[in-house]
Amino acid sequence: MAAKPGDDGCVFCDIVAGQAPASMVHEDDAAVAFLDIRPLNAGHVLVVPRVHAACLADLDPGLGGHLFGVAQRMAAGLRRSGLPCEGVNLFLADGAAAFQEVFHVHLHVIPRHAGDGFRIQAKWRLPGRGELDATAERVRQGIAAP
Amino acid sequence: MAAKPGDDGCVFCDIVAGQAPASMVHEDDAAVAFLDIRPLNAGHVLVVPRVHAACLADLDPGLGGHLFGVAQRMAAGLRRSGLPCEGVNLFLADGAAAFQEVFHVHLHVIPRHAGDGFRIQAKWRLPGRGELDATAERVRQGIAAP
Repeated sequence: MAAKPGDDGCVFCDIVAGQAPASMVHEDDAAVAFLDIRPLNAGHVLVVPRVHAACLADLDPGLGGHLFGVAQRMAAGLRRSGLPCEGVNLFLADGAAAFQEVFHVHLHVIPRHAGDGFRIQAKWRLPGRGELDATAERVRQGIAAP
Repeated sequence: MAAKPGDDGCVFCDIVAGQAPASMVHEDDAAVAFLDIRPLNAGHVLVVPRVHAACLADLDPGLGGHLFGVAQRMAAGLRRSGLPCEGVNLFLADGAAAFQEVFHVHLHVIPRHAGDGFRIQAKWRLPGRGELDATAERVRQGIAAP
């Protein structure tokens, strides 16, 4: 799903092309990283491939691996930055149901500290092993499906 | 920070070594993936390196990239599994302040669907460009630091 930078109204393509403002922290041949304009904490970074890929299914796995490596470097940098950073979350939203808002793959790198107000709410469950094994069988079938 | 599987009381090392139960969905030479026993939704997968690495700083970047590629395959499999999956979140917690509970790196792959009750609470802000640029400078210095 490659698109020419900026040719489809994608704000991240515009940033990659230098046609929209961004507070850059990293650039290489395949990816850039810049600050989220709506940070969860100061130093909240987005790692973004230069090539347009709307979602994980469109993203070359080798490029995905590169994004993760950049995220590791950003996490290490945040810990050395002097900004409040006692831990780091990586987060990626694939699909609107998973809270994706910009449909150009991006990996969040979020510095965390005690009392920062970040919380996850969910309906956690404790299924038995039989239910887990039955679910795993469905996942394996999905992985194996063409 | 390599450790022999299971030799330090690490539950994920025990699973990798076949010495603790797990509902496996993927195994390869470098990583395994199995169901979280406290799932956020049915099919919640953890991608785990075979070698013990407590945190991102201990994780070989090439291996990190491999974990991401496995997570992409898991996400695709979940979408084909028939389990409720309209979107997928990837999530990684690095450090106790970021909600890490098992200190063996693991990448969550979480199937999502409308009305699943998952929410993120945070103190989102909208800093101006000047503040963002100043923060970016600190992050760049952290990245460049030895």
